[in-house]
Amino acid sequence: MSDKVIIREVGPRDGFQNESTILSTDAKLEIIEGLERAGLSWIEVTSFVSPRRVPQLADAEELLHRLPGDSPVTHAVFVPNQRGLERAIASGATEATTAVAASDEINRRNFGVSAAEAMKALPKLLATANQSDVRLTLTLATAFGCSVEGEIAPERILALAEQAIGFGFDELVLGDTVGLGNPRQVTDLYSSLIEGFPEISFGAHFHDTRGLGAANAYAAYEAGVRTFDASVGGLGGCPFAPGAAGNVATEGLVNMFEQMGVSTGIDLDALVRVAAHAARLFDRVLDSAVMRATLAEK
Amino acid sequence: MSDKVIIREVGPRDGFQNESTILSTDAKLEIIEGLERAGLSWIEVTSFVSPRRVPQLADAEELLHRLPGDSPVTHAVFVPNQRGLERAIASGATEATTAVAASDEINRRNFGVSAAEAMKALPKLLATANQSDVRLTLTLATAFGCSVEGEIAPERILALAEQAIGFGFDELVLGDTVGLGNPRQVTDLYSSLIEGFPEISFGAHFHDTRGLGAANAYAAYEAGVRTFDASVGGLGGCPFAPGAAGNVATEGLVNMFEQMGVSTGIDLDALVRVAAHAARLFDRVLDSAVMRATLAEK
Repeated sequence: MSDKVIIREVGPRDGFQNESTILSTDAKLEIIEGLERAGLSWIEVTSFVSPRRVPQLADAEELLHRLPGDSPVTHAVFVPNQRGLERAIASGATEATTAVAASDEINRRNFGVSAAEAMKALPKLLATANQSDVRLTLTLATAFGCSVEGEIAPERILALAEQAIGFGFDELVLGDTVGLGNPRQVTDLYSSLIEGFPEISFGAHFHDTRGLGAANAYAAYEAGVRTFDASVGGLGGCPFAPGAAGNVATEGLVNMFEQMGVSTGIDLDALVRVAAHAARLFDRVLDSAVMRATLAEK
Repeated sequence: MSDKVIIREVGPRDGFQNESTILSTDAKLEIIEGLERAGLSWIEVTSFVSPRRVPQLADAEELLHRLPGDSPVTHAVFVPNQRGLERAIASGATEATTAVAASDEINRRNFGVSAAEAMKALPKLLATANQSDVRLTLTLATAFGCSVEGEIAPERILALAEQAIGFGFDELVLGDTVGLGNPRQVTDLYSSLIEGFPEISFGAHFHDTRGLGAANAYAAYEAGVRTFDASVGGLGGCPFAPGAAGNVATEGLVNMFEQMGVSTGIDLDALVRVAAHAARLFDRVLDSAVMRATLAEK
């Protein structure tokens, strides 16, 4: 098993969409370029959702067009449904992510359908992506608990994963959308998945709502996970708990893994500069201990 | 090995001493009583240091006298040296903690002597404590790294631990004073200590300076540690990096362990109310994700 990890930067999508200050496309491109200079190799740059629902990402087409097409960095886009994927393909996307929430209630609120109905739409989505040479990965959201439904049984995640793998997905990400996961649960669930489906890559998308993002990432790493979503500066917050922390901060994971001797390929100082720049643009204090500690030491 | 953990609440000492707003003795007693009602069984209530150096704790004698003598809760006090211990004994203390920093530079700044000299003072300190039936535990500070000296070799900690155990200490706490530890290092160091000295209780005192307090606590738990220091609301900050986070928040550890199915004996909601009360008294936003998430959900 590799000792390296891949950090998937989701700040420009999952982070930005939960921030109230709307950035210009220029400002977004500047952050994305900063992230690339810091060494991020995979960046979720935007989302093809309804501009009415997420005004922050109304410039998805323009942003994608203005990104250099020959970059060695993967510019992924989030697509909530078939229509979003078609917009993404029309804009030249080469990699896309989609999500189904294990919680029916969250799935209805976000995507308007139950989890089972959302799963049924995946084969067509995957076929459309394959026809256009777009790589599509799936996130199973609220995989570790739901703020409305409470506990999510691991059997439910195993069943959804099996179904998605049957459709042809070769990479699945488990999302702890509201930060309810704990390290023991993370260890158990990933161990079951990796044992059950050794040919599939399982990634982790943790939120720091209860300060356990790094602990859960460490537990997932120990269980064999090598792909981690994170958001620069911890941008994003939690849509279900205003004031609470959001995605685990990219610089937090980079610092932890590098200190552990696990290579991320990312320059921590350069990354912290991007986080500080984002904090200025959004004009707020960000939930990033590493950013604050690094800046306090200067 | 027990599945339970003991949380040692150090907020009223390690937390308060790093806060600039000076609380009245009444206000401190109210927080301590709140912590007891929440189920904390061990509280470091103050420190017998020079009032000139730490004005916040100048009321150590008065505070100790006003605490109920027949409480089932352990009221520990910090003593930096012989003089502090004698003041503590004169005030009726029954349990005390002291510290030696593995880093010579930090030891000089805090206690005015090198680590080796500080170690030499321990046998007399322990004898004095024993004569007065005061239980004395030792914290080895900067055990996972030092902001001035950089890396601290594990061999140095093992040697200091062996020396302290030779003096007669039966409980040692490793302190990550500036939050430089990582989960792999924590696993390795505690595993070595527990294997080398199976009859000794090893505790953990983590700071959240780089957001790894919970991850390090989880790694320590997995390595066999069952005693954890924490500060309500994450009170305290870091004296060597203004603006950076301090002690890991008690409610953060309580939430993590309880979610993992590990009993702490502490009522999380009651604890969060104490943290929120402390935030009002110190008039600042505290570094406690669990406190913020819990209050955001109400």
